[in-house]
Amino acid sequence: MGAGFGGLAFCQSFPRDRADITLVDRQNHHLFQPLLYQLATAGLSDADIAQPVRAILADRRDITVLLDEARSIDLSRKILQLAGESLPFDYLVLALGGVTNYFGHPEWEEHAPGLKSLQDANRIRSRVLLAFEQAETHGPADSAPGLLNIVVIGGGATGVEMAGSLVELSRHVLRRDFRRIDPSQARIILLEGGPRLLPAMDPALSAYTRKTLEQMGVEVRLNATVKSISHHRVETNQGTIHAANIVWAAGVKANPLLAQLGVPTDPQGRVEVLPDLSLPGHPAVFAIGDNARVNGKEKQPVPGVSPAAMQMGTYVAREIAARLQNRPPGKPFRYWDKGSMATIGRTHAVAQIAMIKLQGFVAWLAWLGVHLLFLVGFRNKLSVLLNWVFSYLAYRPGARIIPNSPA
Amino acid sequence: MGAGFGGLAFCQSFPRDRADITLVDRQNHHLFQPLLYQLATAGLSDADIAQPVRAILADRRDITVLLDEARSIDLSRKILQLAGESLPFDYLVLALGGVTNYFGHPEWEEHAPGLKSLQDANRIRSRVLLAFEQAETHGPADSAPGLLNIVVIGGGATGVEMAGSLVELSRHVLRRDFRRIDPSQARIILLEGGPRLLPAMDPALSAYTRKTLEQMGVEVRLNATVKSISHHRVETNQGTIHAANIVWAAGVKANPLLAQLGVPTDPQGRVEVLPDLSLPGHPAVFAIGDNARVNGKEKQPVPGVSPAAMQMGTYVAREIAARLQNRPPGKPFRYWDKGSMATIGRTHAVAQIAMIKLQGFVAWLAWLGVHLLFLVGFRNKLSVLLNWVFSYLAYRPGARIIPNSPA
Repeated sequence: MGAGFGGLAFCQSFPRDRADITLVDRQNHHLFQPLLYQLATAGLSDADIAQPVRAILADRRDITVLLDEARSIDLSRKILQLAGESLPFDYLVLALGGVTNYFGHPEWEEHAPGLKSLQDANRIRSRVLLAFEQAETHGPADSAPGLLNIVVIGGGATGVEMAGSLVELSRHVLRRDFRRIDPSQARIILLEGGPRLLPAMDPALSAYTRKTLEQMGVEVRLNATVKSISHHRVETNQGTIHAANIVWAAGVKANPLLAQLGVPTDPQGRVEVLPDLSLPGHPAVFAIGDNARVNGKEKQPVPGVSPAAMQMGTYVAREIAARLQNRPPGKPFRYWDKGSMATIGRTHAVAQIAMIKLQGFVAWLAWLGVHLLFLVGFRNKLSVLLNWVFSYLAYRPGARIIPNSPA
Repeated sequence: MGAGFGGLAFCQSFPRDRADITLVDRQNHHLFQPLLYQLATAGLSDADIAQPVRAILADRRDITVLLDEARSIDLSRKILQLAGESLPFDYLVLALGGVTNYFGHPEWEEHAPGLKSLQDANRIRSRVLLAFEQAETHGPADSAPGLLNIVVIGGGATGVEMAGSLVELSRHVLRRDFRRIDPSQARIILLEGGPRLLPAMDPALSAYTRKTLEQMGVEVRLNATVKSISHHRVETNQGTIHAANIVWAAGVKANPLLAQLGVPTDPQGRVEVLPDLSLPGHPAVFAIGDNARVNGKEKQPVPGVSPAAMQMGTYVAREIAARLQNRPPGKPFRYWDKGSMATIGRTHAVAQIAMIKLQGFVAWLAWLGVHLLFLVGFRNKLSVLLNWVFSYLAYRPGARIIPNSPA
């Protein structure tokens, strides 16, 4: 269950008509999470990066899609308890994805929303745009301190992409829209707890990313640890920052339901699965994507990225299909690292593919190509491409709608 | 104030740099209301039919846009009181638009939402899609009575377009998406209080519209008056209908703020303006669009449609500009009726332009052309066209996302 990258890859690679498959998800859509930051910064719209699960699987008569939520899982009796019904199962695939990790401070969520769902992204977009609107209403002098400041916490790919996209929003997209304020006076502050941005990538690319972001106008603060977050205020080891908008991009942990299964989990809540991705002691139950802790090459855990989730989904589909035909289990799961990439701005990106490092415009083109390639649905690809071409030419994304502006 | 068709036409046709213009709206976007039903029926997305007001007017340095709401208007002291500030004015243009008219039954709104804003349309879309999801979860036998019934109240253009679009959604778009239910079992019931649909158009077109809708699967009930609406239930003079979704498309009235002005209004709350669209006794205050009651040809009141609002906006811009230059006032406002049209389904429409009546595919092409022509913003035009081409070819609108599905 779960219609993220892992769950969907499982469904799509499972052979047709060999089993009755039920896909359960809380949402009616598959979300292209790598582009969620574009929704939060008014570059794209809901329908550009989300696709109804039913539409994706319309041709698979052997798959039933249920809009429902798991309440509990009885592993010994093999029953999945949903809000709406009880589902007995022969095999279960846990692809519940992750939730934002506030590292023991759930009270920060209210002040520093994360970026995991359409609702999260729409909320951040509305808050950011409303801050500019309030500044225009009250004028710069009478505004609350930090009204136009935006703090992004976390210097991984999401944080870097958010910060780059926000600085372009304020410096270019909104440039001519206001009369009483100058949107480019907005400060975008990116906080990273470690000594460099994009810690998963090569240090040379981290340095390039920092330099590029700073040239664009982002204030990058390294070795900055957050002590507390309250209304419009972040306390760090480097001092206090006032900001009407605070975005949390510092971590993800697995769905809390996994903790109730009685199997060992790692600090991020992921199940410590066996090499075939099954749960210890439960050979018919598998965990994939952000729900599985498994080691890749050099004993490093496989990262929580979409290609890894898709590879796991495909692997488990093959394994279960083999068992249903009484064929012997295959080799252990092996993660094929296709590399990673992050976009920094309109024409800059960094990419690391095996030994190859790319930066600048070439990396950005690679980023664009890969993301379009994997966007589910042809219509979405065209719409997103069109949107990007327009953004690129005119710096005028069309998506900065506040659906219901609480004036 | 008001960034609807009238207010925007006023701003765009007012000569540059002759005055300090402030445009106040509660929303940050201009909404292409004639296509709102497409949003409610998952054919289009927010950003396809809405455009940020600031972006539209970015080039007009003489116009300040405020996201704010009028609290009261002091006509004698010439002060507009907003939530955020007090705005003194020399001239005031009331372009506040309308709200859904429940004819003295505000308690019906909860059960039968209207269709005036992005939020309204998104709410209707989510409710309709969730009804199908619930039926799939519980199965047809265990579902509440009328779970898949949708009642549309009002046989004007909005009601006809909603009903046609809903029947296509259930008969075609969702056809292959479900396993336990057959979405084409959904009943779409269109109620009209009078003896024919589209009462503003020629009776021959009304008959054609009814026939076409019925062939598509809509149950059309004429002379049906609503007695009461409660949860999932409509009482009419022809009996009781159970339906999980009830949509109100039966009427619009002017913004209630106008009632506080102390000037005569008509039963729909519109100000009875003078022939130059100014308020009686207040030559510097004008009302346009759904806020003005003025007679056109043959003493019929000018209808509350977007071309009329735009013509009034342009007229008032010219009048105020003339007065600022001490030129004499021009001729009284004259409405140029460009005709009216309504789309019935994927390839059918009716149109009436002066003495010409069109129906069927030709009318639909005309409808498509006119709507694309007037959609604000080139990017939107392309995106909407693309979406329509895809819908037309594949019957698979990409917008049926429930942003936050309460599973």
